[in-house]
Amino acid sequence: MQVDRERLREDIERTAEFGRIESEQGRGRTVRAASEENGEAREYFVGRLEDAGLDVRVDAVGNVVGRWVPASADPDLPPVAAGSHLDSVPEGGIFDGPLGTYAALEAVRTMREADTRPERPITVVSFTEEEGGRFGSGMLGSSVAAGGRSVEEALALEDEEGTSLAEALDGIGFRGEGRVNAAGWDAWLELHIEQSERLETVGVPVGVVTDITGITHCDVTITGEANHAGATPMNDRTDALAAASEFVLDVERAANEVVASESESAVGTVGSHSVEPNATNVVPGRVDCGVDIRDVEYDSMNEIVSRARSSLARLESERGVETELTRAFDVEPVPMSGRCRSAVREAGEAAGIKTMAMHSGAAHDTMQVARVTDAGMLFAPSRGGISHNPREWTDWADCATATQVLTGAMARLAGTTLEG
Amino acid sequence: MQVDRERLREDIERTAEFGRIESEQGRGRTVRAASEENGEAREYFVGRLEDAGLDVRVDAVGNVVGRWVPASADPDLPPVAAGSHLDSVPEGGIFDGPLGTYAALEAVRTMREADTRPERPITVVSFTEEEGGRFGSGMLGSSVAAGGRSVEEALALEDEEGTSLAEALDGIGFRGEGRVNAAGWDAWLELHIEQSERLETVGVPVGVVTDITGITHCDVTITGEANHAGATPMNDRTDALAAASEFVLDVERAANEVVASESESAVGTVGSHSVEPNATNVVPGRVDCGVDIRDVEYDSMNEIVSRARSSLARLESERGVETELTRAFDVEPVPMSGRCRSAVREAGEAAGIKTMAMHSGAAHDTMQVARVTDAGMLFAPSRGGISHNPREWTDWADCATATQVLTGAMARLAGTTLEG
Repeated sequence: MQVDRERLREDIERTAEFGRIESEQGRGRTVRAASEENGEAREYFVGRLEDAGLDVRVDAVGNVVGRWVPASADPDLPPVAAGSHLDSVPEGGIFDGPLGTYAALEAVRTMREADTRPERPITVVSFTEEEGGRFGSGMLGSSVAAGGRSVEEALALEDEEGTSLAEALDGIGFRGEGRVNAAGWDAWLELHIEQSERLETVGVPVGVVTDITGITHCDVTITGEANHAGATPMNDRTDALAAASEFVLDVERAANEVVASESESAVGTVGSHSVEPNATNVVPGRVDCGVDIRDVEYDSMNEIVSRARSSLARLESERGVETELTRAFDVEPVPMSGRCRSAVREAGEAAGIKTMAMHSGAAHDTMQVARVTDAGMLFAPSRGGISHNPREWTDWADCATATQVLTGAMARLAGTTLEG
Repeated sequence: MQVDRERLREDIERTAEFGRIESEQGRGRTVRAASEENGEAREYFVGRLEDAGLDVRVDAVGNVVGRWVPASADPDLPPVAAGSHLDSVPEGGIFDGPLGTYAALEAVRTMREADTRPERPITVVSFTEEEGGRFGSGMLGSSVAAGGRSVEEALALEDEEGTSLAEALDGIGFRGEGRVNAAGWDAWLELHIEQSERLETVGVPVGVVTDITGITHCDVTITGEANHAGATPMNDRTDALAAASEFVLDVERAANEVVASESESAVGTVGSHSVEPNATNVVPGRVDCGVDIRDVEYDSMNEIVSRARSSLARLESERGVETELTRAFDVEPVPMSGRCRSAVREAGEAAGIKTMAMHSGAAHDTMQVARVTDAGMLFAPSRGGISHNPREWTDWADCATATQVLTGAMARLAGTTLEG
């Protein structure tokens, strides 16, 4: 049972044509959810599912599923599902999403050709809007499939131009009926690029995800007093940017200390900073910061948030600024299922492919699916750790190797024992 | 010899109607140079000069001068000049500029009525575009009058819509001929609001400016590596914002140390900060900072610049960022002339009005004029130190008091000794 590297490559390269952007840095794409380009990518995907003999269905929020019921399977058993997404961030890469989607399809094609005899049906899935760039909501399709959000709520979401998801899906002919129900799956697997460089550094081709980190976003506002930079003496200032600079360094220090003492996977980032009035000759009066905190341990995340609050309290008393912190977004860490992790690890061993355990620092559709069924993830190496960028790259050999492990793991979960 | 407070107030209040903006915070105005509103303010000014019996002339860059040759004066002697500007920053205040312009006219009116007998002619001046908000060039008219910039160069300057100063002046009928030549003035005085709160704090109504601070603007770029905030471990980041935050605090510390050890008037500000890509979930890859450094001692300014450079060198070695610092704008401090300062101080003493020596942290047209003739400045108190804002305010009594001192100083410089 051997995956076809060229067939997989062709599917990813064809998908890369939709929304293709030219860049000196590499081949990129801009594929907003339910855009014309996304419609083209979906049409191609549906065609490839049908070519492989799968029954295709599109649900009310545009999730696309292809179902394979092998002759060996009991069609009433909950299926094993796998897949990913086809949308991208603006000026994103060609692997983030399409690799996992077409790897799942390639797994089915490979199993069919190898005449494997799974006991369960197998479902290949592409979720609507994983990236959240258009309707403001990452993991949109998977959250509906996992019951975290209703179909109606999702369809009413609007983009910046006021177009609803319902209208956008109608526009590309991908507003179907019903709801893909992830709770009805026996297990779920998603292959994705790592978006970090641990696999590359260690030289291992496949990562077995143990946990997807939780994510907290804090909106922080620091208010001082805007004043003439020339006419305001140093001892008479309430400089919001100087205070915000201490805050940035305090968040960095808090994360580093938590890494050293509690949980080495913790990260804390002040990623955005908007200064008012933001003129060279005016003492800054206000800074709005966006803080991102993640870890596989929720306690560690809370510790960093708590230290960020302490930093702001100190700045209020030492610098006379006013501060505000809102924990605007908060998702707890999600552990992957033990039997899914085992299936991936064993598939690697059986195929003679090294795997290593690692956590995912990024969010994925699997976070949603894991709420309602056993879920697991595989990572393929990202060159230089770069993603969300035309420079995103995974060698075709690595794509095939990870797909080989995915195929073995899906076969195992579906009740087949067959060496590749 | 007593200035007419109500007449001065009426001129400033009438001028405040042109480009008037409504604001909860107070009465403001938006008067871009050579705009329709500026044209109206100029028409009113010309009318008031003519009402007072002055000969009005407009030069090729729109500087407006009114000349009074008293019967007692030798018309061939270099005149004493005084004035300011009529343009404003967007949503600026009603005193910044008009106070000094109309105070100079009020001084002439007062001298005429008191039948003083100056030996020199007196010239009242309104310079074109002091604020630099439209044609990108502060102190535009005064730089031409002082010979620092040619008429042709000035007229060719364009605003954001591509309109040249020449076209804009034609549009309001204020493109005259020739060039006002500040080098031909015997002395120059400018009354201006302080834009800081030292006078208010100390309770003295008039400041005698000793020096106008020099100004250095540095453009600083700090480049790290943009990366996924979730997938990039703390020890694998080159966070441009964390580095820039250290830089902001280093500049603040350098200025504070120079204040403590070398020159208490020194200031250093990082006023602007633009982060890329500026998303909560991305480790910042690049920060562009605008740094403003001022002092009456050029050595102290250089010391702060030097420490800023050292900070960047340290950040390159400690954090692996790349940095760049360009000293994009640099004007050395300008001391005021001793005899102009004496004239103001003595005029205060003669009128029983307290004055105090102080420096100007802001730039003014006087910086240009001081290059070619003896120049001095007076400050009136700014409530709360606020300027460039509809909340800008100077009590009418304080306007009149400062104008009284200006009048005495002009009379002294013009060779009249007459107590008010």
